[in-house]
Amino acid sequence: MTSLDDRAALTSGSDTWHTTAAEGLVPALTLSDGPHGLRRQAQAEGDALALRKSVPATCFPPAVALGSSWDVELATRVGAALGREASALGVDVLLGPGINIKRSPLCGRNFEYFSEDPHVTGALGAALVTGIQSVGVGACVKHFAVNNQETDRMRVSAEVDERTLREIYLSAFEHIVRTARPYAVMSAYNKINGVYASHHRWLLTTVLREEWGFDGLVMSDWGAVNDRVAALEAGLDLEMPPTGTDDEIAEAVRSGRLDEKVLDESVERLVRLAERVSARLRFDGWDTGAHHELAREAARASAVLLKNEGDVLPLTGGFCVVGELARTPRYQGGGSSHVVPTRLDNALEALGSPGFAAGYRLDGQADAGLVAEAVELAARHEVAVLFLGLPEPLESEGFDRTTIDLPADQLDLLRAVSCACPRTVVVLSNGGVVSVSGWQEHATAILEGWLLGQAGGSALADLLTGVCSPSGRLTETIPLRLQDVPSYLHFPGSDGVVRYGEGRYVGYRHYDSADVPVAYPFGHGLTYSRFAYSGLVVDGRRVEATVTNTGERFAHEVVQLYLGFQGDRPRHELRGFAKVGLEPGESATVAFEVTERDLASWSVSRGGWAVEAGTVTVEVGASSRDIRLTGELAVEGDGHTAELTRMSTLGEWLAHPVGGPVLRELMAEHVPWLAEAGPALLGMAYGVPLIKFRTFGIGLSAEVVDALVARCAGSPASGRSA
Amino acid sequence: MTSLDDRAALTSGSDTWHTTAAEGLVPALTLSDGPHGLRRQAQAEGDALALRKSVPATCFPPAVALGSSWDVELATRVGAALGREASALGVDVLLGPGINIKRSPLCGRNFEYFSEDPHVTGALGAALVTGIQSVGVGACVKHFAVNNQETDRMRVSAEVDERTLREIYLSAFEHIVRTARPYAVMSAYNKINGVYASHHRWLLTTVLREEWGFDGLVMSDWGAVNDRVAALEAGLDLEMPPTGTDDEIAEAVRSGRLDEKVLDESVERLVRLAERVSARLRFDGWDTGAHHELAREAARASAVLLKNEGDVLPLTGGFCVVGELARTPRYQGGGSSHVVPTRLDNALEALGSPGFAAGYRLDGQADAGLVAEAVELAARHEVAVLFLGLPEPLESEGFDRTTIDLPADQLDLLRAVSCACPRTVVVLSNGGVVSVSGWQEHATAILEGWLLGQAGGSALADLLTGVCSPSGRLTETIPLRLQDVPSYLHFPGSDGVVRYGEGRYVGYRHYDSADVPVAYPFGHGLTYSRFAYSGLVVDGRRVEATVTNTGERFAHEVVQLYLGFQGDRPRHELRGFAKVGLEPGESATVAFEVTERDLASWSVSRGGWAVEAGTVTVEVGASSRDIRLTGELAVEGDGHTAELTRMSTLGEWLAHPVGGPVLRELMAEHVPWLAEAGPALLGMAYGVPLIKFRTFGIGLSAEVVDALVARCAGSPASGRSA
Repeated sequence: MTSLDDRAALTSGSDTWHTTAAEGLVPALTLSDGPHGLRRQAQAEGDALALRKSVPATCFPPAVALGSSWDVELATRVGAALGREASALGVDVLLGPGINIKRSPLCGRNFEYFSEDPHVTGALGAALVTGIQSVGVGACVKHFAVNNQETDRMRVSAEVDERTLREIYLSAFEHIVRTARPYAVMSAYNKINGVYASHHRWLLTTVLREEWGFDGLVMSDWGAVNDRVAALEAGLDLEMPPTGTDDEIAEAVRSGRLDEKVLDESVERLVRLAERVSARLRFDGWDTGAHHELAREAARASAVLLKNEGDVLPLTGGFCVVGELARTPRYQGGGSSHVVPTRLDNALEALGSPGFAAGYRLDGQADAGLVAEAVELAARHEVAVLFLGLPEPLESEGFDRTTIDLPADQLDLLRAVSCACPRTVVVLSNGGVVSVSGWQEHATAILEGWLLGQAGGSALADLLTGVCSPSGRLTETIPLRLQDVPSYLHFPGSDGVVRYGEGRYVGYRHYDSADVPVAYPFGHGLTYSRFAYSGLVVDGRRVEATVTNTGERFAHEVVQLYLGFQGDRPRHELRGFAKVGLEPGESATVAFEVTERDLASWSVSRGGWAVEAGTVTVEVGASSRDIRLTGELAVEGDGHTAELTRMSTLGEWLAHPVGGPVLRELMAEHVPWLAEAGPALLGMAYGVPLIKFRTFGIGLSAEVVDALVARCAGSPASGRSA
Repeated sequence: MTSLDDRAALTSGSDTWHTTAAEGLVPALTLSDGPHGLRRQAQAEGDALALRKSVPATCFPPAVALGSSWDVELATRVGAALGREASALGVDVLLGPGINIKRSPLCGRNFEYFSEDPHVTGALGAALVTGIQSVGVGACVKHFAVNNQETDRMRVSAEVDERTLREIYLSAFEHIVRTARPYAVMSAYNKINGVYASHHRWLLTTVLREEWGFDGLVMSDWGAVNDRVAALEAGLDLEMPPTGTDDEIAEAVRSGRLDEKVLDESVERLVRLAERVSARLRFDGWDTGAHHELAREAARASAVLLKNEGDVLPLTGGFCVVGELARTPRYQGGGSSHVVPTRLDNALEALGSPGFAAGYRLDGQADAGLVAEAVELAARHEVAVLFLGLPEPLESEGFDRTTIDLPADQLDLLRAVSCACPRTVVVLSNGGVVSVSGWQEHATAILEGWLLGQAGGSALADLLTGVCSPSGRLTETIPLRLQDVPSYLHFPGSDGVVRYGEGRYVGYRHYDSADVPVAYPFGHGLTYSRFAYSGLVVDGRRVEATVTNTGERFAHEVVQLYLGFQGDRPRHELRGFAKVGLEPGESATVAFEVTERDLASWSVSRGGWAVEAGTVTVEVGASSRDIRLTGELAVEGDGHTAELTRMSTLGEWLAHPVGGPVLRELMAEHVPWLAEAGPALLGMAYGVPLIKFRTFGIGLSAEVVDALVARCAGSPASGRSA
């Protein structure tokens, strides 16, 4: 039996990157940052975080890019490669993926997240977890939950209603926990409705463990615990890194404030985690060349071709390259996820080192000489390929942006270059969305390259020259203006509070529901071929559609399924997608199974998911605004009928299968004038709770109403159907 | 001493319109609906509500119109006239004004409310209360609070954060309670954050009585009490109408569940109210002609001239009149506020009965014959004056609209008429805002007449013919599209809940902060003259500006003062206005005193109003988007500095007058590399609570941090300044 103090010691790490060992019970486990590549700290470094001093590892495309691939199989392979590298570096648990929802394009850490939509986030996140864990290394899904900004992230209270939590911010976590079974979950820094995520029993125990069946370990984000005992009681098993406060746990047990069982459960979970990762496959190393090629494949699948006027891409004739970012790539974000890559491609060399001009400086200092040189170069070429983007200081973990504009000096350069060379192709490198308004008319084509990892440079060259066709699609709407973003007036809050005013209407759920024009919609992305949609079949819960490559090249289409519901819901929501690669003339039939949960919304009054009877619109298309096929799906509903009470309205009574006829009879007898009232009066009366009629002199006394309630209670149509 | 049962009986009415009397203690008081006119029910009517069967009384312009007058003096006179009529009809308390904020143009009862803005609502509401109570009749301000929709109004929970409550939904109530001291307040039907307004102790006691000093009586909206004891305990003194449940109160006292003092306090408040209204002036009747003239004056002051191309108005030559609403005016809204008028003017007669065609039917049935007749008539006239609007079934208390469009048949008529007669003037009659998009280009001029009361017809004739100049201004933005309304996706909620997602960003606070184009902005209104603004002086808290009538006619200008704040606040907020009538060439200087409260926002963390030091933009203009003069006001702030704690961030520490130097010294000594860190790392570190540095290996142990906190605690700059 391990002593109380020793068990208490297990609830925090032994240092920044290791759990505590207990002789004969559990070994120390090694943890490492890096959802898109390992950030295994070299030994004996002085700075505990040592953000830029890790052992080299493959830098795969960060989530902003990989998410844009919409490729579950690819993400699984990337996960497996990450797992292999982790294991080779002696890492037991990899701290990722990050699956927070992109609530605002300003969030400094958006490059670590997949999407504004929980469905695509859940699908890609589950694939990464499955891949990582396929070699026995643990994944740690983060940051649980509602960590959607960097501003005041260690204190701010995210104020979100439960329906929004359930449908948007918890939904991807739920999907991944239920289907990919990650070994660990990392709690977030922030508060949720006033309670720190790390102290949030409802979140960490009621929802995560009891509802979703999570049986893994919950660790804190680095430094996220503010009260050891409260955290442990809430269900947080492991504080990282240690703060030397394990005695608080032991003391709380001794004083009776903390039930020893709570401690033992957390210890058990650590032991279980150790047992799980003890089975991990052991590797001496990995094939850095093969992993680089996988990083390149992933990067090629992730860039999004936003526009391509006159098919200027792929490049066929002579071209020059402009922009420092072509030579000095920006390929990952700043902060805890920063990887030291094994190699680093740049687009300039990958494009065969054509004529080049830097055009601008990465420090944002205007340089007229560089502009003049670029213009002179561009004027001599049929096509100018101009690399623009956000230099590293403009976005990072730790702070949020305040604008979505590209740097002004780069836009000035674009205007100058596009005057000199009307066929200007813009290639973007940025972790968070940038606006294209005010400049996209100067670009003949735009290839959104996000941050593409260490092979991004060669991947961009492959795409620009047509070695392969772009196949990425937006997982985040590009708005026309920052002011159009639904959280614009509610981000990042103040005074310790951020109100999620937009509620469930995040991203396209807002733009499409409120008919707000956007620059490029969710799901959008062009390629070098074209696709036709046909043959929509809705058969029960099965939806089928056929997609045909009607162009001249092999290319991928991302077929998207949206469902549109009646009532207080977004205009439509993504419920399925499939990425298919087709040769010219080739067709494929994609099929989706619509689940009960796909139809459900969260009912606050019932405290659960509810499916209402009715007709659901089925949409299949190439983006949220490029719906090619539309059908209907008849939904029976979950059969729930609310129990009739005194406070049920006249309308609810009359619509009720049992209560309706009973009340109608009574009305005809007692208040014939109301039974025969015109639509105006009746319209006003329909919304009135039945009990209120006693005060309006209509003759329905409280006794009569209560007798009616009793008569209808427990009737077959009351309560949930069997 | 009155018996317990008799005292309990005093907490509900004796019938629908009377309080209960207690021999020797308090007489029965008479209450009556009608914020814009008395709805005194004739005796011995069967139907307890008898919505259309009251004694004739002057129907003044409902709040939607009177608010648009921006005329405090006029509203006071209207109030006094209402008080006189009330008294003459034996009414002790008039159930009004309704001062809820127009959260959505769809709210079916918006015609009873003043504005989307609490400042103008508070000013006009206070004027009415002052007027009513000037003759000793009590006013009853309603519906307290957050009753902003009709859908499910008797059950729905309005979910609103406290800052929004304080700054938007409670603010007008607070102003009126503090300055006009109404005798009574009516609690709303709905719940607020889960608790019925009628059972809401924080609302009815903590805020209303303890904070604002209200010493009057709180009665329920008709049928709003669901639990007598809970309501009484919360501070609701009087249930209306009675539900025969007074024994619940007596029983609760007997069983000890309810403190008898609570009952006695409510009885005391009823006695106090009776004493107050016992002093009311007694009148035998009133001069119906004079009151009709006052109603006409108010109507003339309330219509808003939205556009007037080529100065087509005032009418100078021949014209015809089209539209059934010219002959059959819509002049007030449906529901509990419906008044039987003493007279009723119609515009057609008031315009001298020119050529007339009905054009459409009020029941919405298309009638091609009527259209053809109207077109034929219009074709023969230089100007067609076309009366359009919302027929009565389309808006009322009791239900919300689902569209802001005018009826399609009326718009078809407009297109046809304007083709036949290019100079078409549209006169609108509607209680809730209607869209002008898609048709206003067919109207040469638009006069928004709202619902103007019984003299609206003659008032409109006065304005159209130039007997007087329009002087109303919008108190509610006319959006381009319903989808642009900030509550669009959050109204009217579902499942028993309506989330006030837009928070403080109601009306122009949203449109102006998010740069959303609108059809006509808040504060807009034209007249038959022009005004120049000059001479802005900001001297301390005093703001002065001069306005000059540079046109050819006597007319009124509504000079508006907006303040623009830094930080997490709307782009600007109305903080003052003044309506001035000027002869051609005449000037007037208007002055505003900016109060501390005008500068404040509600701080959740402090639980009170806070004024931050900084520069405030002072804007004086003719609408929220027609700012003519801009200045600055230096604000010292309330001197509050948050106490430094372990959880204060590095940035907060460094900015603190005492903590900053102390910490800087310590950093230079212990972590010189951090003290000298570049802006990127420091930017990330600035947001980190000081205590977190213990885990990041920087050498600030918990003991060191606590010692720092102790050293800075109670320093002059900590806590509120003296």
